[in-house]
Amino acid sequence: MIDRRLFLAGLAAVTQLRWTGAALAQADPLPSWNDGGVKRSITAFVERVTTAGGADFVPVAQRIATFDNDGTLWVEQPIYTQVVFAIDRVKALAPQHPEWREQQPFKAVLEGDRAALAAAGEKGLLEIIAATHAGQTVAQFHELVHEWISTARDPRFHRLYTELVYQPMLELLAYLRANGFKTFIVSGGGIEFMRPWTERTYGIPPEQVVGSSGVTRFHLGENGTPMLIREPKVEFIDDGPGKPVGINRFIGRRPIFAFGNSDGDLQMLQWTAAGAGARFMGLVHHTDAEREWAYDRNSFVGRLDKALDEANAKGWTVADMKRDWRTVFP
Amino acid sequence: MIDRRLFLAGLAAVTQLRWTGAALAQADPLPSWNDGGVKRSITAFVERVTTAGGADFVPVAQRIATFDNDGTLWVEQPIYTQVVFAIDRVKALAPQHPEWREQQPFKAVLEGDRAALAAAGEKGLLEIIAATHAGQTVAQFHELVHEWISTARDPRFHRLYTELVYQPMLELLAYLRANGFKTFIVSGGGIEFMRPWTERTYGIPPEQVVGSSGVTRFHLGENGTPMLIREPKVEFIDDGPGKPVGINRFIGRRPIFAFGNSDGDLQMLQWTAAGAGARFMGLVHHTDAEREWAYDRNSFVGRLDKALDEANAKGWTVADMKRDWRTVFP
Repeated sequence: MIDRRLFLAGLAAVTQLRWTGAALAQADPLPSWNDGGVKRSITAFVERVTTAGGADFVPVAQRIATFDNDGTLWVEQPIYTQVVFAIDRVKALAPQHPEWREQQPFKAVLEGDRAALAAAGEKGLLEIIAATHAGQTVAQFHELVHEWISTARDPRFHRLYTELVYQPMLELLAYLRANGFKTFIVSGGGIEFMRPWTERTYGIPPEQVVGSSGVTRFHLGENGTPMLIREPKVEFIDDGPGKPVGINRFIGRRPIFAFGNSDGDLQMLQWTAAGAGARFMGLVHHTDAEREWAYDRNSFVGRLDKALDEANAKGWTVADMKRDWRTVFP
Repeated sequence: MIDRRLFLAGLAAVTQLRWTGAALAQADPLPSWNDGGVKRSITAFVERVTTAGGADFVPVAQRIATFDNDGTLWVEQPIYTQVVFAIDRVKALAPQHPEWREQQPFKAVLEGDRAALAAAGEKGLLEIIAATHAGQTVAQFHELVHEWISTARDPRFHRLYTELVYQPMLELLAYLRANGFKTFIVSGGGIEFMRPWTERTYGIPPEQVVGSSGVTRFHLGENGTPMLIREPKVEFIDDGPGKPVGINRFIGRRPIFAFGNSDGDLQMLQWTAAGAGARFMGLVHHTDAEREWAYDRNSFVGRLDKALDEANAKGWTVADMKRDWRTVFP
């Protein structure tokens, strides 16, 4: 008799485990996404490509997902976080550069003259980046970024920038990884500006970060210590048509899933869409001025115009922040 | 009674499983390496960095291992395999280039004139690479490489080039991966020449291949089809001081384990050695003219001179092919 009781107890335990497993499997992996077509388009895609024996099954090795960063994974308004960092670096370095007091665009930064800074345009911005992102080793630069990102706060939300990441996208990254995807960042931002914090913030390790870069030079120091020196020269701009180039260079295979939010992501989405088999192309549409920002066709930062037209014409997924996101920040 | 018998049967089964497990754990993971100091230096290092709680423990995410390819993972004599491919491409393309019959270095290739080809030197080689590695899409180039590597045979060993990989290194790659390492290729060879076959041959996926590259351009074809076009312009040479630069660019963290075989790997080994904590730096020394090739300080291909001196001075591991490898090829 005891045999049978033990057997039944064991059976019950096993059954319970199975029930728990089923319950876990059925728990919503994307709780910050409101129910609706957008959320369904994501889960339906993942189910299609992960169903063994299905017509659209994709082997794990080919489950490559690429995400833009600024405006897709974290806030990019009113100006890219990396620009705020560069401006703070200009202020920190100013005592060593008395000439900046009379020299644009540095004068504008130091005097907080927004009109003059805007007038300096993209060229001025590149000068600021070059002056603040070079002349040190990669390790020293990482240290500066780490220190800044651990303390600097966004003026509107009074939060660390790494706390201004989008909760729905964090869930999406985790959901994809739980389904065998390898998640990559493919950003116009600087690769060395992102790497010090992407692993902690997004669970994306440095070797899965693709971004813009400056020329780096190997140098053996006096005592034979090898160093990598950052030079004030652009090497690669990972934006617009540069994104498929960067994807090819770093990843070497075409994503089956890509998410962006601006015209700078259009070619990445086109490149993703043009592959054979099931594909997912997504855009974040910033429609929520109350909880975050509302901008698209006329924005200087993160302009979304051509990519929105193409998404609508081709039936790509457009996540409307106001409608589709239950929560914005963690 | 039956209870106890069942219990004992179960215990026996569990014990047997454990024994099998222990036997498997104790099976030699590197059977093609002869016992001795070199093999011990590898296994001792892996044990040190994977022993939880040990002074030299390294978390899985930081277990980055980088391998040179030519001469480290596969044969590079009498000339790099990629050069053989380029020469075969010159011959295949010759009917479309009647001018090559009178134009060096192409004339030398078409006439099999080794002296003239040698006289054309590195500049000639780059011209051959540029003429044969550009002007098509990345996908078309991959197809050409795939076709060639599946059929071309080495003239001495009469084997496919992918069969001229080193069995001890295949075991080492698998052993490291089984111990949580992420294995990368960091080669002076062309990144697009390697990617079509590294996954199948070494278990190294395209996104873990770092190599030299040409400029690639995104182009939207007439019908809106996006393409990546290979241009005849060098973008990056991943050799010598370029290797730490390539490692930083693609991986973004310093390896704790690196293996090379020539002076072109010296800076990668220096860069690896200069990190904090336990480090492994290894060289393959080609000493076996009978089973493979014997060459070092005076070889044009794969010269090993300064790196050998530095390895000896600093106590890096030098694998002597003749002494340390029981088997060379699979």
